Amino acid sequence: MNQYVVGIDVGGTTVKCGIFTISGVLMDKWEVPTRKEENGCYILPDVAESLKMHMAEKTIELGDIEGIGIGVPGPVDPNGHVNVCVNLGWHDHWPAKEMQELMGGKIRCAAGNDANVAALGEMWQGGGKGHDNMLMVTLGTGVGGGLILNGHIVAGVHGAGAEIGHIKVRDGEPEQCNCGGHGCLEQVASATGIVREAKRTLVSTDEASKMREFGEALTAKDICDCAKEGDKLAVQSLGTSLRFLAQVLAHVSMVVDPELFVIGGGVSKAGQYLVDVLKSYYEEFTPLLDEKADITLATLGNDAGIYGSARLVLGNE
Amino acid sequence: MNQYVVGIDVGGTTVKCGIFTISGVLMDKWEVPTRKEENGCYILPDVAESLKMHMAEKTIELGDIEGIGIGVPGPVDPNGHVNVCVNLGWHDHWPAKEMQELMGGKIRCAAGNDANVAALGEMWQGGGKGHDNMLMVTLGTGVGGGLILNGHIVAGVHGAGAEIGHIKVRDGEPEQCNCGGHGCLEQVASATGIVREAKRTLVSTDEASKMREFGEALTAKDICDCAKEGDKLAVQSLGTSLRFLAQVLAHVSMVVDPELFVIGGGVSKAGQYLVDVLKSYYEEFTPLLDEKADITLATLGNDAGIYGSARLVLGNE
Repeated sequence: MNQYVVGIDVGGTTVKCGIFTISGVLMDKWEVPTRKEENGCYILPDVAESLKMHMAEKTIELGDIEGIGIGVPGPVDPNGHVNVCVNLGWHDHWPAKEMQELMGGKIRCAAGNDANVAALGEMWQGGGKGHDNMLMVTLGTGVGGGLILNGHIVAGVHGAGAEIGHIKVRDGEPEQCNCGGHGCLEQVASATGIVREAKRTLVSTDEASKMREFGEALTAKDICDCAKEGDKLAVQSLGTSLRFLAQVLAHVSMVVDPELFVIGGGVSKAGQYLVDVLKSYYEEFTPLLDEKADITLATLGNDAGIYGSARLVLGNE
Repeated sequence: MNQYVVGIDVGGTTVKCGIFTISGVLMDKWEVPTRKEENGCYILPDVAESLKMHMAEKTIELGDIEGIGIGVPGPVDPNGHVNVCVNLGWHDHWPAKEMQELMGGKIRCAAGNDANVAALGEMWQGGGKGHDNMLMVTLGTGVGGGLILNGHIVAGVHGAGAEIGHIKVRDGEPEQCNCGGHGCLEQVASATGIVREAKRTLVSTDEASKMREFGEALTAKDICDCAKEGDKLAVQSLGTSLRFLAQVLAHVSMVVDPELFVIGGGVSKAGQYLVDVLKSYYEEFTPLLDEKADITLATLGNDAGIYGSARLVLGNE
């Protein structure tokens, strides 16, 4: 009884699903296509049906499951309500309540924002294991964040908790961010931002750089690779991006003072080089702190969301 | 029984003491000089003695008191330990434990950092009443902060929670901050910082300004008064200081997303003008937020510390 817990990570293309033991061992993992037709009304029924099949295969009964957690790619109110989720076509949904009904009404369900839930996953079984006070930073197309204090997600009163991608870091930025601002962290330190910064650097000088060989197709990975090989312009432009990120990590330290920053998302595949550069800049921005927060890499990759969704229903014990 | 609660705000010159009803009505208030001789070993015994006298006067017995809270002008570990408190000469103190022993061992005592405790006081009976998620900003000689989430102080893992005065806001600042950094918020938005900024403005131009009449003795209050009267250079330089402060409030919104910012300290005597200027800049820095946090003035003045210390022992009920 209550040996298992289920994590559902709803994405715009696929829904990732996982069955875990309550101690955090992943037993089964699968994906379901995200059917966005008719305002996404099929998404949760599809998930419930596939979950029932996987449970049957493993002879797991509903009574064996502690609960089902759901990560949603948009804001979730503290009471579980989703007003709008653009990526899924959802308007006015109660995903936890709906999943509970789909499973027969007798199981505990909870929902949370996907970035926050991923942070919870990394805290439970990933790079943040053993740390109750941490910020997870996801460096992908955008810059996402998930803040955990005393083991609890800090979602914020208006759902803007850990929205560090939209902290303004740069004056005079001419391009507009998606949020409507100018000079947001996301504009310089996301995968897209790292590429933008490098292209600006390349245009500003005639100096030789391996980055020029990639032309318009230059990616954040190429830039990280070139920087690791010591390419001067790559080191310089990636350094600019990471310096702004480190400055924001320092800001976070002066607001909530966590033990640890966990860096995930595609860009984090650059590995220890990224961590080392971030640490040196973070040091520069935190002269106040005798003891500094540590910076480390996420370890769960794309599974962070299912881990964290599952963890969501286990509470804080 | 347990009708009262005591708040002790230990400062470098005087210790403020208050006896409150548990519903937050201040019944008695007095001060005791802070004797810093011999590493401040007399401070708490002096307070305990005066507290016993005031209790006797009011025929309050120890059994009538729910607890005694103590605000300390320096970092307090989560377990209540004070490693060093420069302003009091303390090294290796356990103020709550010591106070409990001084009062006969049978009373609940707690200690916290004074800036955090002041925030708790404003939450309980001041500008933040009715709000569980707020940041208090104290604009005095420095810029202090106290962060409350879900009714609890966020002190931080290394005691740097809400140290927003040391968020770097300005590149290229030549002067060094007390923390060793350059360009901290405190350097431009504290009372001292507002004066520094205004003096720099006055030196940079020959333009007429009422601020010039004050000469070297120019204070933050003078600058606020001149700005309210529409003095162009005062509006401009105070605007620079408050714009940086608003930018940091926006940062805080993108980290913990509180309901409310409460502005206290000497500079806050400038009143609604200050709030209005801050709000307009805060608006500019938070395009992401559909609903914005409110900004308001602290109302307890120098009593915030005794209110908050008292509140500290009442827990989160």
